[in-house]
Amino acid sequence: MLSFFLVATCFTAFSQEKHNMVAVEKGLIKVSVMYPYSEGKTFNMEYYETKHMPMVAGFLGANLVKYTIEKGLASGIPNQPLPFVAIGTFYITSLTDYQAAIGPNRDAIRADFPNFTNISPVILVSEVVK
Amino acid sequence: MLSFFLVATCFTAFSQEKHNMVAVEKGLIKVSVMYPYSEGKTFNMEYYETKHMPMVAGFLGANLVKYTIEKGLASGIPNQPLPFVAIGTFYITSLTDYQAAIGPNRDAIRADFPNFTNISPVILVSEVVK
Repeated sequence: MLSFFLVATCFTAFSQEKHNMVAVEKGLIKVSVMYPYSEGKTFNMEYYETKHMPMVAGFLGANLVKYTIEKGLASGIPNQPLPFVAIGTFYITSLTDYQAAIGPNRDAIRADFPNFTNISPVILVSEVVK
Repeated sequence: MLSFFLVATCFTAFSQEKHNMVAVEKGLIKVSVMYPYSEGKTFNMEYYETKHMPMVAGFLGANLVKYTIEKGLASGIPNQPLPFVAIGTFYITSLTDYQAAIGPNRDAIRADFPNFTNISPVILVSEVVK
């Protein structure tokens, strides 16, 4: 009986966990900082990953659910140039809170750009649909 | 004794699960199909979410870890146009397997485009760094 209870608890906790994991991203706001490829531009991924992104993430507090970094490899369309060298994405719950947190730190963030790139990023604010 | 074993198994499975969830994305390949915004273009998100993306996902088999859909809301830079109306992303383990799976279905995928958009997408192949 006790065993049954423990197993039941275990499965309940387990499926809850899975459910939370699956549901966690839907409805979140993404701020994607996208660095377009063009010839002669440079991007230091190591600095970006170890210094720049952690610095910006540190400004966001509990509003930040997670952040991701991806490295562009190729265009998925033959004979097309690589669209983006890198993309850094912040998953947040509130865009207002994000803007309030970034505002006073904008100069520090901009001042760090030359340390890893000479590319002007495109920034997409989007909503996770699925 | 049996109870202890069950609880131990439960916690082991649980922490394994958490570990997998945290580690699962790093190293994966993303194929991001990005629909640039421009005036007069249309995009039917409901069709995209309920018909097009599930169809393409269905071609990918076990190579597909997950797929996501996001809806573009705004540029993160004031007075800049929205960069992308929508982005659909496939998280896969093998780009070779992806290409092998998509190849024979390319015509069916292309034929479905007019059902939800008149935008020509940009496709980024990238690697999850973090």
